[in-house]
Amino acid sequence: MSEKIRVTVWNEFRHEKTEEAARAIYPEGIHGAIGAFLSKNSDMEVRLAALDDPGQGLPDEILNSTDVLLWWGHMHHGEVKDELVERIRRRVYVDGMGFIALHSAHHSKPFRALVGATGNLLWGDEQKEIVWNILPSHPIAAGVPQHFTLPEEELYAEPFQIPRPDAHIFEGWYEHGYVFRTGVTFLRGAGKIFYFQPGHETCPSYHNETVQRIITNAVRWAKPADFGYKVDPGAPWVPPIA
Amino acid sequence: MSEKIRVTVWNEFRHEKTEEAARAIYPEGIHGAIGAFLSKNSDMEVRLAALDDPGQGLPDEILNSTDVLLWWGHMHHGEVKDELVERIRRRVYVDGMGFIALHSAHHSKPFRALVGATGNLLWGDEQKEIVWNILPSHPIAAGVPQHFTLPEEELYAEPFQIPRPDAHIFEGWYEHGYVFRTGVTFLRGAGKIFYFQPGHETCPSYHNETVQRIITNAVRWAKPADFGYKVDPGAPWVPPIA
Amino acid sequence: MSEKIRVTVWNEFRHEKTEEAARAIYPEGIHGAIGAFLSKNSDMEVRLAALDDPGQGLPDEILNSTDVLLWWGHMHHGEVKDELVERIRRRVYVDGMGFIALHSAHHSKPFRALVGATGNLLWGDEQKEIVWNILPSHPIAAGVPQHFTLPEEELYAEPFQIPRPDAHIFEGWYEHGYVFRTGVTFLRGAGKIFYFQPGHETCPSYHNETVQRIITNAVRWAKPADFGYKVDPGAPWVPPIA
Amino acid sequence: MSEKIRVTVWNEFRHEKTEEAARAIYPEGIHGAIGAFLSKNSDMEVRLAALDDPGQGLPDEILNSTDVLLWWGHMHHGEVKDELVERIRRRVYVDGMGFIALHSAHHSKPFRALVGATGNLLWGDEQKEIVWNILPSHPIAAGVPQHFTLPEEELYAEPFQIPRPDAHIFEGWYEHGYVFRTGVTFLRGAGKIFYFQPGHETCPSYHNETVQRIITNAVRWAKPADFGYKVDPGAPWVPPIA
Repeated sequence: MSEKIRVTVWNEFRHEKTEEAARAIYPEGIHGAIGAFLSKNSDMEVRLAALDDPGQGLPDEILNSTDVLLWWGHMHHGEVKDELVERIRRRVYVDGMGFIALHSAHHSKPFRALVGATGNLLWGDEQKEIVWNILPSHPIAAGVPQHFTLPEEELYAEPFQIPRPDAHIFEGWYEHGYVFRTGVTFLRGAGKIFYFQPGHETCPSYHNETVQRIITNAVRWAKPADFGYKVDPGAPWVPPIA
Repeated sequence: MSEKIRVTVWNEFRHEKTEEAARAIYPEGIHGAIGAFLSKNSDMEVRLAALDDPGQGLPDEILNSTDVLLWWGHMHHGEVKDELVERIRRRVYVDGMGFIALHSAHHSKPFRALVGATGNLLWGDEQKEIVWNILPSHPIAAGVPQHFTLPEEELYAEPFQIPRPDAHIFEGWYEHGYVFRTGVTFLRGAGKIFYFQPGHETCPSYHNETVQRIITNAVRWAKPADFGYKVDPGAPWVPPIA
Repeated sequence: MSEKIRVTVWNEFRHEKTEEAARAIYPEGIHGAIGAFLSKNSDMEVRLAALDDPGQGLPDEILNSTDVLLWWGHMHHGEVKDELVERIRRRVYVDGMGFIALHSAHHSKPFRALVGATGNLLWGDEQKEIVWNILPSHPIAAGVPQHFTLPEEELYAEPFQIPRPDAHIFEGWYEHGYVFRTGVTFLRGAGKIFYFQPGHETCPSYHNETVQRIITNAVRWAKPADFGYKVDPGAPWVPPIA
Repeated sequence: MSEKIRVTVWNEFRHEKTEEAARAIYPEGIHGAIGAFLSKNSDMEVRLAALDDPGQGLPDEILNSTDVLLWWGHMHHGEVKDELVERIRRRVYVDGMGFIALHSAHHSKPFRALVGATGNLLWGDEQKEIVWNILPSHPIAAGVPQHFTLPEEELYAEPFQIPRPDAHIFEGWYEHGYVFRTGVTFLRGAGKIFYFQPGHETCPSYHNETVQRIITNAVRWAKPADFGYKVDPGAPWVPPIA
């Protein structure tokens, strides 16, 4: 691993080209907005990638030099090639790359394959969300207050079809009577995964300072560990030790 | 769900046809041996299925009337069709069918897809294994002693590439200096999954009474719950409640 | 363990003697109301116990013949003797007695000692609560719908000072913007513990059929397991096995 | 929190005064040996404390300026005052102090009170232990190989009477046929707890470089988080937010 955390922010990047409401909030794309605030950290170097880039944005030379991959996708999950999903899975399971699934990435192919889930949930109109920090000792919650309010965010609600998270850090309250496990982690193979709910394309959540703090914390948490051995070498035959 | 638990024992069923050492121990096949002891329970009705049966043993009319599916595979994982894996996954995630992965099923397509894992591990020669019961309050451990010995079992060893189990019930000690999470559960979608290590094709573990007790317990534990609602209806839009 | 589940419902039983609002809802006491609906189950035999009974309601002959103990306390936690707390702890840890902590029992001495927690939380006025069933495959959620509404319940809110539960089954949404882990389990020693939030003394929640179903399910889930060995025999010296 | 991690190494410190076998290995005491290797880290400042020191080694001015407390005790757990245990518990639960329980501290009053456990286990003669690193992505496993051998360590064995750990990092194999959850973490209140098995007073495990690396990693992991709010303010009444 290089000195700096090598971050790649992947975005479907279609809404912002075709919908005025999305472009107005994210003129440089959602990935551009996320990349902009992450780039302010001297311990990170950030690249942007999009579905319509060559190699769907993640040819080997990029994927294999990525320490933490952030993923935002929504309407075009099906276009992501299975062979790319498989390369991402290996990179997480075997090499320990971090993966941060944002908002509608709950339904993305990589998230579902990595975690083992349909990712189904209930969803509804944009409304007030209050995010509760219920595990303040977790590194991803560093500096995050007890709760904060997002005045407008898309409703995502339980029952959320995910395995039990390894850590349940944030819980969302919604004006219309719903709750959601808004920020949760999963350990898979050598890698670390964080799912975080805010970020509908027509809501300004990625401009919220607390949301930015959480995503920044998550990048640092998700970077590959200082492994003492090759975590997943396949399935070798081994001789007696004792 | 019918009154009885509808159990299907699926077996690759190749070793027992071609290897004398396996046939000597399991003349009716591994599935035959497992089916025989399960059938003694009045609350279960048991069917056998094999890779070389029509529809790879699990056409819709069988799979969709199975409450708990046991899976033993080893050398021919790759022959199992992806379309069958997907049907099994839906049946577990959406309908709550139980799935019991036996021995080398750690590398089977359904186990890996269901759980989200490579299933890699270390392996070695047959040797003495001592199985420790470390969660005696779990239903799968009912009536199981503190420890029991398998005089000859294939070495499967850590690091086992699985997500954190929902319950870690049995831990294996091996003569050659290795340890293994020998009996572990995973909750995925609506369904329950149990992985249990013993059962190499040339070892008589499925004739061991404690192993039989554990598998019997696991079938009862893994049967579909009495769901109060349709667990995974997809991702519907929902109106305000409050 | 006897054929029937031997249930003891313990209640502080002071509010109902001194406050008209509580007595109006629970004329036979909260324990009386809970005992009444549990007694309808042919697999349970139910006794009532109260703080002001001899031996604080739980002399050895009662405690040691109890399979599942339900506990409701509120204003007089401090009066419960430490020696009783220690006997309850042993009965749970060593013998596997179930313990169901109701509502303000989050602050009771036995709950805090058993689980390892301060049990602190935020609280507020009575208001509408919507309870979400997020783990429908759990036995305690059997037959429970996706969500149900309690028109009036006391606010209990995150951050709830508890260790990570072994299962997080119910999540509460509150009208005033708060969320709470409303139904959670803990495994401790040989025993099973369930905490369930509803049940303020001036709210009729124990008359709600879904609440009754959940508590009934919890009693069945929490009964002592069919242990294959003496779970906690102290710390004996042991000779070589292998 | 000061810039440096303020570490206090507490030791019963009786064996090393009275037993030649212990003194030969730890002439400055077990706490002296641990303090010596921790002090080499420029990010730590280390103090030593012993049972026979004034205030049992942990008067308020020391305890309240400790970020991470290491605890080694064995034969004299009962002498530790309940009032000190309660102060430690508050410091962990409320302020987020880290607590590292070493070897026979599984039976210490603070460990049992913090975690909610009897801490009982099986134990036996000194023998070869092989420690397996089964969660290499955890910060406490940084740089730790797949396995390492302790030629002589006291047998501690399952069933270990602890709640489910928040992380199960190391698993121990013992020559005599036993296994043990040798390195496990617990989150309690605002604080982080690590239990680590090696360290019998007549075994040189604290001179082992991998053991030293693990304890050093654990101190960094266990230091108080950068809390965004006062984790446990008691149980305040709160007004409507929404």
